[in-house]
Amino acid sequence: MTPTFSAATYIARRNTLIERVPEGLILILGNEDSPMNYTDNTYPFRQDSSFLYYCGIDRQNLVLALDADSSEVTLFGNDFTIDDIVWMGQQPQIADQAASVGIHKTGSLSDLQSLIQQAVSQHRIVHYLPPYRQLNTLKLAQWLGRTPAEITAHPSRKLIETVISQRAIKSEEELEEITVAVNLTRDMHIKMMEMAQPGVHEQAINAAVTAIALAAGSMPAYPNIISIHGETLHNHAHGNVLKAGQFLVGDFGAESPMHYAGDITRTCPVGGAMNDIQHAIYNLVLKAEMDSIDQVAPGVPYRDIHLNAAKIIASGLKDLGLMKGDVDEAVAAGAHALFFPHGLGHMLGLDVHDMEDLDENLVGYLPGMDRSKQFGLKSLRLARPLLPGFVFTVEPGIYFIPTLIDLWKAENKFAQFLNYAEIEKLKDFGGIRIEDNVVVTDTGVNILGHPIPKSADAVCEIIRNG
Amino acid sequence: MTPTFSAATYIARRNTLIERVPEGLILILGNEDSPMNYTDNTYPFRQDSSFLYYCGIDRQNLVLALDADSSEVTLFGNDFTIDDIVWMGQQPQIADQAASVGIHKTGSLSDLQSLIQQAVSQHRIVHYLPPYRQLNTLKLAQWLGRTPAEITAHPSRKLIETVISQRAIKSEEELEEITVAVNLTRDMHIKMMEMAQPGVHEQAINAAVTAIALAAGSMPAYPNIISIHGETLHNHAHGNVLKAGQFLVGDFGAESPMHYAGDITRTCPVGGAMNDIQHAIYNLVLKAEMDSIDQVAPGVPYRDIHLNAAKIIASGLKDLGLMKGDVDEAVAAGAHALFFPHGLGHMLGLDVHDMEDLDENLVGYLPGMDRSKQFGLKSLRLARPLLPGFVFTVEPGIYFIPTLIDLWKAENKFAQFLNYAEIEKLKDFGGIRIEDNVVVTDTGVNILGHPIPKSADAVCEIIRNG
Repeated sequence: MTPTFSAATYIARRNTLIERVPEGLILILGNEDSPMNYTDNTYPFRQDSSFLYYCGIDRQNLVLALDADSSEVTLFGNDFTIDDIVWMGQQPQIADQAASVGIHKTGSLSDLQSLIQQAVSQHRIVHYLPPYRQLNTLKLAQWLGRTPAEITAHPSRKLIETVISQRAIKSEEELEEITVAVNLTRDMHIKMMEMAQPGVHEQAINAAVTAIALAAGSMPAYPNIISIHGETLHNHAHGNVLKAGQFLVGDFGAESPMHYAGDITRTCPVGGAMNDIQHAIYNLVLKAEMDSIDQVAPGVPYRDIHLNAAKIIASGLKDLGLMKGDVDEAVAAGAHALFFPHGLGHMLGLDVHDMEDLDENLVGYLPGMDRSKQFGLKSLRLARPLLPGFVFTVEPGIYFIPTLIDLWKAENKFAQFLNYAEIEKLKDFGGIRIEDNVVVTDTGVNILGHPIPKSADAVCEIIRNG
Repeated sequence: MTPTFSAATYIARRNTLIERVPEGLILILGNEDSPMNYTDNTYPFRQDSSFLYYCGIDRQNLVLALDADSSEVTLFGNDFTIDDIVWMGQQPQIADQAASVGIHKTGSLSDLQSLIQQAVSQHRIVHYLPPYRQLNTLKLAQWLGRTPAEITAHPSRKLIETVISQRAIKSEEELEEITVAVNLTRDMHIKMMEMAQPGVHEQAINAAVTAIALAAGSMPAYPNIISIHGETLHNHAHGNVLKAGQFLVGDFGAESPMHYAGDITRTCPVGGAMNDIQHAIYNLVLKAEMDSIDQVAPGVPYRDIHLNAAKIIASGLKDLGLMKGDVDEAVAAGAHALFFPHGLGHMLGLDVHDMEDLDENLVGYLPGMDRSKQFGLKSLRLARPLLPGFVFTVEPGIYFIPTLIDLWKAENKFAQFLNYAEIEKLKDFGGIRIEDNVVVTDTGVNILGHPIPKSADAVCEIIRNG
């Protein structure tokens, strides 16, 4: 069974939730198994993260109901039948699991339906979070007598905001969990570095790093990116063989025992050697990453740190003759996004993009902060002023994306800032990204976990000794 | 990109489908990515198997439409935008992928909606298979203007029967694919045997065998069962440490490059030694497996082979003093199911339980064959007379399931056939299952793939040398 925090932790979280939601019935739906190619052939079970946050129970087909008026908390689910036990093994009674996390009232799923019907008939507000699995959409539709489209359109804004307000601030025990995840992720990255040799197949590295997570009883927190085509930002294919002179981008992370995520990126020069331009661009990404981390402090808007990273990148690329003109103007216009088309980072916790199911903008932006529509900046998930306890990624990158270069060059886009003649020469450069996970402290920042080698020298040394 | 058969293969399959469905518009829906803990954090993509069967294209969010009246075949899907390319990489044009499998008409997903609306307005039959992913249920509901419950209730029986009639008979090139899957699965099983030592953690073995599949660019065809609690039939937990004297049941298989499944079980005495009763029961399961395989031939109902395996098991357990009375009567009553509570096997192909999404009974039973409701026999998925080209598993087992023993003993169930005093002594025995994958030939049977060690001596030798 998955470990949990103490009952006191979950009781305190639930009490806060009930205090902040003024009235109504709150439903936090757990997940069921998710079908691969037929109903009973399922992917590895992943519990819903908000469900884990409020009760920690890692089991299929449960619903947590919190009555904001009476403060009553009930866990609903069906105990195993003898057929279930024969096929899936003995499971604890739901009442016992509930009691272990401080919940002393349980009921069956048909009890839940009665409770919801009563609430609906009394015209009470029924709060639910935005369902991202269609099975939960269909369940809510059935329980509440609405269409799936109505369910999708009307999650509870009050509940969303309350859950975000709680989950956004990580406690000490949550930081310990994330640190466990990052340290396991570190082992995976060092294995990748050791294997970053000419002739090695990407899928062999994928197998080896995944095996490290599985052997620890963990699983990847998101699909592993292990690619010599790091210029494709979310490249999940592993079909290539490494060649000397290429960069291998590895962006992957394990989950902790309680399903908190690590999310680390390192970039390996295959064989452990770089030419001058590779070295220069590697160090530029590293400088952007380390300078960005240095700027993290309470009150600083992360959008400012993102834009500063963009300026570091644009300035460095100007020094290399790839960009030109005024750096501030180039970044304001978005010209740097040819090379750095994504955001500097995102919140991290029980989800690798923490709480992305709830609402990306409510998580990363304050009311009144407009999210840019500019290519590059529009992908920034975290922009708001930072608070102590925020945990997030810092992950600048520089990429040469052939299709994008061709498209922009054909349009002569940002010609005053981009030196296409020089850029063309690096169309097969690939990409570099470097990423760590940090927490905002009362006075500044801590990088989570044991340090993971990232200087060019340190990474090349591991590869050459690998 | 995933390899495919030649265009001629898919053209012939589609022509047969169109010939056998007399009229209407046939929709074969591909899958999309499936969300883990939020929409964009997805499980490894698995294409729908019927979609793979009729066009082989391993890509998200496509729909194949076949007009049974005009014989027109169209592949619908949306090409990548530049944002898609930046995040997910260059993809072939859908028209090019379609042409490679002999489809020369393509359209966008909005074109598909128009086509369906036209068919609905003309009161044409729109055939679809039973959706097992709720996203496809919701899509069909929207396209056809029906509720999700109506969509679930009314898949096309004619289409289901036609698809089963085609997919049930494996061609030579399909047998080659399944053989590739079984041979890769063989490597995984030999690794398990080598690791079946006291002190080794189940999750370490899970990691190592999964890594073999991943390193070959494959993935597990179903959740790995690797457990010293093999008496739990579908035990997906890997939390135990192996001890001498236990049995480790490993039931897992890789997919071939085109997503055909292997499904092999071997049982390892930890450390490579068995005591007398373990040896006797191991050999009894092996005898049930090998004798069952010997009986496979065209025309033989697989239910007969299942019942014969049950009799072999009951007879052997009687010899060991665990059962008593008349063996035929015991099996007719279902008393053996205390030890052998599942079916002897199931079809195997693009799905590990092949076509289970379509209809388990239409796959494994002929019209007029009643499926038993008896505990044990009710779980037999394949019962019908065998035809050349059928591929399926042969997987008898003997288990000591403590909860079930307690339950039956308390009821004194089948006391005339079960010697509870002796059974009680083996409550911590665990379970043994041995499984191979076979094809019915014109005259008999072939076991697919290179032989995988299964005699007690061969398995113990690998373990002792591991």
